[in-house]
Amino acid sequence: MVDSTTKKEDGMSKGLLIVFTGNGKGKTTAALGMAMRAAGHGLRVCFIQFIKGSWRYGELEAVKRFAGLIDLHVMGKGFTWKSENIEDDARLAREAWDFARQAINSNSYQIVVLDEFTYLLHYGMLALDPCLQFLTERNPAQHVVITGRYAPPSLLEAADLVTEMQAVKHPLASGIKAQKGIEF
Amino acid sequence: MVDSTTKKEDGMSKGLLIVFTGNGKGKTTAALGMAMRAAGHGLRVCFIQFIKGSWRYGELEAVKRFAGLIDLHVMGKGFTWKSENIEDDARLAREAWDFARQAINSNSYQIVVLDEFTYLLHYGMLALDPCLQFLTERNPAQHVVITGRYAPPSLLEAADLVTEMQAVKHPLASGIKAQKGIEF
Repeated sequence: MVDSTTKKEDGMSKGLLIVFTGNGKGKTTAALGMAMRAAGHGLRVCFIQFIKGSWRYGELEAVKRFAGLIDLHVMGKGFTWKSENIEDDARLAREAWDFARQAINSNSYQIVVLDEFTYLLHYGMLALDPCLQFLTERNPAQHVVITGRYAPPSLLEAADLVTEMQAVKHPLASGIKAQKGIEF
Repeated sequence: MVDSTTKKEDGMSKGLLIVFTGNGKGKTTAALGMAMRAAGHGLRVCFIQFIKGSWRYGELEAVKRFAGLIDLHVMGKGFTWKSENIEDDARLAREAWDFARQAINSNSYQIVVLDEFTYLLHYGMLALDPCLQFLTERNPAQHVVITGRYAPPSLLEAADLVTEMQAVKHPLASGIKAQKGIEF
């Protein structure tokens, strides 16, 4: 860890595109920890959830303690990937992405988190190329964090920092149920 | 995610031993997010840092917002693994481990996080077998989260949930320096 402001060769600060992917635990949780740490520095974070219901009481109560620093937005209104209407899902995905682009373009946040955003790309709810173009042409000082399984290779290519969370062992596989405060 | 209290076959609740390891980003950050989420549920967390100086202002300010729920303890008083006195390091490691065992045995916390604890095992500052014996014989309802690179295989074997954070791409490798609010 180097305690200095990041500068590119041209002296501009560099916003990172960070991806947490893979089939293991901790992707959203790491983004949440990162958001709270940034808020601890007084930075403003926009945390956009693309999957409804992935957060529970614990996360919501935790984020409330950072009112004015972390803005949480849940997209989709029922956008659970179980819709029987693909057209409807695609429309909701576009609306959610429009919202995310506005947040990224607003210059109101040092960090914008697109939580579980990869599913929209993986399942073809959004066209990949325009998304990548928008991300790579964003304000170069803007940090963006994307989480979710199945991150497309071209997204990883565009990213500055990629961590793959690999499930080495998972208790649900051995019949232990998910627990309050631990897994949600 | 199953919204129910976890029960083992015998009806006891099951404390998990969770390990975040690997060379990628997000191990400590995931543990921090997990601690804050648990605190959001009103659970009490003891977060013990085994490497001095790994946390900065951001994490410390974030955790302050959970006063009374997350207790943070920094072990080692200069225990940076750069000591020229190996005897001294080993003594500090034993003292830190004694503290951690007391926290785990106290039944005061639903979750005890041993942040960057693996290094003590990897570098032989602590004997592995007694540590594993203590962890496997702990109160079976006690959750323990361990982070750090180089987790010994026998620790992974003993764990209920293991995620390996793999560095697919890292900005420091491409000459971008660490940034406030993002990496610390």
